[in-house]
Amino acid sequence: MRRDGRPVPRLHVSSPLAAGTRVPLSDGQRRYLARVMRLGQGDAVRLFNGADGEWLARLGDGSARCDGRLRAQTPGDGPWLLFSPPKRDRLRFLVEKATELGAGRLTPVTLERTEPPAARPDRLAAWALEAAEQCGRLDVPACRGQRTLDEALGDWPRDRVLYLCDASGEGRPLAGPAAGPAAFLVGPEGGFAPAELEGLKARPMVVPVSLGPHVLRVETAAAAALAAWQTLTAVAGVATGRDGAAAP
Amino acid sequence: MRRDGRPVPRLHVSSPLAAGTRVPLSDGQRRYLARVMRLGQGDAVRLFNGADGEWLARLGDGSARCDGRLRAQTPGDGPWLLFSPPKRDRLRFLVEKATELGAGRLTPVTLERTEPPAARPDRLAAWALEAAEQCGRLDVPACRGQRTLDEALGDWPRDRVLYLCDASGEGRPLAGPAAGPAAFLVGPEGGFAPAELEGLKARPMVVPVSLGPHVLRVETAAAAALAAWQTLTAVAGVATGRDGAAAP
Repeated sequence: MRRDGRPVPRLHVSSPLAAGTRVPLSDGQRRYLARVMRLGQGDAVRLFNGADGEWLARLGDGSARCDGRLRAQTPGDGPWLLFSPPKRDRLRFLVEKATELGAGRLTPVTLERTEPPAARPDRLAAWALEAAEQCGRLDVPACRGQRTLDEALGDWPRDRVLYLCDASGEGRPLAGPAAGPAAFLVGPEGGFAPAELEGLKARPMVVPVSLGPHVLRVETAAAAALAAWQTLTAVAGVATGRDGAAAP
Repeated sequence: MRRDGRPVPRLHVSSPLAAGTRVPLSDGQRRYLARVMRLGQGDAVRLFNGADGEWLARLGDGSARCDGRLRAQTPGDGPWLLFSPPKRDRLRFLVEKATELGAGRLTPVTLERTEPPAARPDRLAAWALEAAEQCGRLDVPACRGQRTLDEALGDWPRDRVLYLCDASGEGRPLAGPAAGPAAFLVGPEGGFAPAELEGLKARPMVVPVSLGPHVLRVETAAAAALAAWQTLTAVAGVATGRDGAAAP
């Protein structure tokens, strides 16, 4: 906490973090700290880079110097999210919520009923980074360019289950134990095309699941799937005596 | 489905619905059907009123005539959501997501760190209604005016558990079996004040829960709690041989 009770600003950087290391800050970060947060030399910030945990650092001239480590890095193997991108602020909310709820990778996918425009990966990455800074994550979800379903499912890792979020009501509810690597696929507002659905269900890694009785918007389905997964993982962890935190 | 493959428009009305009944439509509904959906006399719409299920109806002159019932009414006892209202589009998203994810009642609450302005119940109700029409719900969450915590917890029903969504990381994960009436309380971005948290934990109906390892925004926490609840309820229903749908 800062003296005024507000949390110490948290920034993602790309440099290595270690005791005594001086970390350069981007122009945007310097402007943000000076103009929005009104911080100056000697003030505290928190830094993370997705590899070295979270560090307390002191602002210097255009850089920050690592003081001490606040948290060790945890392995980030959150579920992957494949989704038909909704438009405008719904897309931003999807990325923000998926980041807060622990998604490890975001892949926009073009399905038959997906409407243009394609999601820009640089925008997804910027939103994901901002959400990661805000929510206390130690990593940032990897944001990929939009691709076809076949491209997205090519080279699929053998042990990763792909939960197909199927609004047709036929899937069973997502159930625990939520073990092993997972991914979720959320279709467009108009739903999957029948042939698409059949093709998906024929793939060995696909498990259709239902997310409840209502027709969910894309960003709602994405958040609901990830939230349910976190809770099931946490409950399974408590039941087996492991840590109750949802992140593995 | 309409001939063009789009779903038949779905409208909430306040009149009773029964075979042959003529249901008046509001000016807004008539404009929407004519100008946005480009429908005219004889075209099909779906109607629901929170009491009589969902009906297929045909458009007449300023009204619609009930043809046949598509779905019977189900008891709507979704969890209540008490929340410190976020601002602008985040508030709208909260209401929309909570409606899609089955909340039965929405109550904005003023906590110590809640920032003005107060949420307007007429706006909440309009957003909830729109989301209920879109997501296929048979009822609309009740939207209440903003009130203090003491007011919100006055006359609390004995059997309704209030899950306190506590970002301090001390709560246990929300766990099943998700039985009986429930409510969730989500605090402001700055968190609950220490005295507020102590006071809440001393109340007999309060159960602190954790929604995972990250700091969630208000609207994310609300959606995550309701989604986790739906999934736990559905899983419990499957395990005991009851219907797999999340709504009781």
